[in-house]
Amino acid sequence: MTNGRAAGLIIGNEVLTAKVEEANGAWLTRRLRERNVPLAMLVTVPDDVDAIVEAMQLLKRRAQWVITSGGVGPTHDDVTVRAVAMALGRRVVRLAEIEEKVRAHYGERLTPESLRLADAPEGSELLHQAGRWFPVLACSAVYLLPGVPELFRIQLETVLTRLPVGKLTTAVMYLSAGEPEIARALDAVALAMPEVPIGSYPNFDESLGYRVKVTIEHAEAGRVAEAVRRLTETLPSGCILRRE
Amino acid sequence: MTNGRAAGLIIGNEVLTAKVEEANGAWLTRRLRERNVPLAMLVTVPDDVDAIVEAMQLLKRRAQWVITSGGVGPTHDDVTVRAVAMALGRRVVRLAEIEEKVRAHYGERLTPESLRLADAPEGSELLHQAGRWFPVLACSAVYLLPGVPELFRIQLETVLTRLPVGKLTTAVMYLSAGEPEIARALDAVALAMPEVPIGSYPNFDESLGYRVKVTIEHAEAGRVAEAVRRLTETLPSGCILRRE
Repeated sequence: MTNGRAAGLIIGNEVLTAKVEEANGAWLTRRLRERNVPLAMLVTVPDDVDAIVEAMQLLKRRAQWVITSGGVGPTHDDVTVRAVAMALGRRVVRLAEIEEKVRAHYGERLTPESLRLADAPEGSELLHQAGRWFPVLACSAVYLLPGVPELFRIQLETVLTRLPVGKLTTAVMYLSAGEPEIARALDAVALAMPEVPIGSYPNFDESLGYRVKVTIEHAEAGRVAEAVRRLTETLPSGCILRRE
Repeated sequence: MTNGRAAGLIIGNEVLTAKVEEANGAWLTRRLRERNVPLAMLVTVPDDVDAIVEAMQLLKRRAQWVITSGGVGPTHDDVTVRAVAMALGRRVVRLAEIEEKVRAHYGERLTPESLRLADAPEGSELLHQAGRWFPVLACSAVYLLPGVPELFRIQLETVLTRLPVGKLTTAVMYLSAGEPEIARALDAVALAMPEVPIGSYPNFDESLGYRVKVTIEHAEAGRVAEAVRRLTETLPSGCILRRE
């Protein structure tokens, strides 16, 4: 797929059982947005091979790049490598290049289980990171990142350098009318310009002084301006409080 | 499916584009945990019928109950009802019972678009809520909740009264050894007691004074105690700092 979209797969029982407050999904969302890489879907699954395989198959259909978080350590509940390999139809192999790094890193403290860190889907590529002993594991546009937030964030930056930075213009309109009153105008413009995503977000907090926030987005500023022009013409008269 | 697990589907471009900080997924996770209802998967998708349908089909395979958030208003980007109906193989129909409520609620301000709030997958059930004019829409164990966090939370409580409260015992062990050193012991106990989920969470913050946190969970306290006993015997001697 070459649709220019990314997806995130957060792996870990600890997240779904509220043992930790999930942070990597929100961070990934924010960083992708800052670089205008569209996020197609975000899925959180337990440390379960079947669940990961099913989610991965869905995400590979919806996005060009998939970034996973978690499940890449040496313990029994670290099943990401195995599950991703299965989803991609590849064997799990031990990579000599990582094995060397693991041996050098652990030295005297090496256990047979440490070497599991050198297992990867066959054909994986290693993205080296300056100042870090462990590379990012990439396979078929799937990037396998650790779940520990500090490490996830560092490795994500390495991944982001490989994704093209997008372009986006956004306009926002704050309205005094409610959604039922503006729905017809939004329908008309959305139908005429289906390539321009228009979002409608009702607000029930009276202190904010508006009832609906409408967002208009497109890579080309001209398309955004045109949608804003059409909305301004079509919305109930006098309901636009302000624009951004 | 009668597997006793729930799943969450968060719908909205505004979440995936980081325009709003997603709150409903975390809230759902916490409330399900408080009632010991296992959460099988949590998926965030855009306001896109295909994406919702594909995610819903996955979630229906993985969970008995699916709770959705968002996309249920009267505007063009509110596609949840249509997509859920499609995923469940049902038509969308206008429910006379909600139509009456919508007419009464909006009165003079009624627009044709307001009545979209009365559309639902055929065969939907309405869960009435004390003190609220709008019921919760339920269809084939899918609960369609609004994305506005205040409303989501209120409706979620109505849904939770329908799900059986679970039972869970949890034990936690804090270890001075790292994951590579304890992996063999965890393997052995996880293999011997596959019905007891054991989690292993490395900590890289030295100020916390431990290197790995291990969690053991099961509905029956006896199974948890047995797993803790086996781990205590099998882990490297002296590495258990404390238990909770």
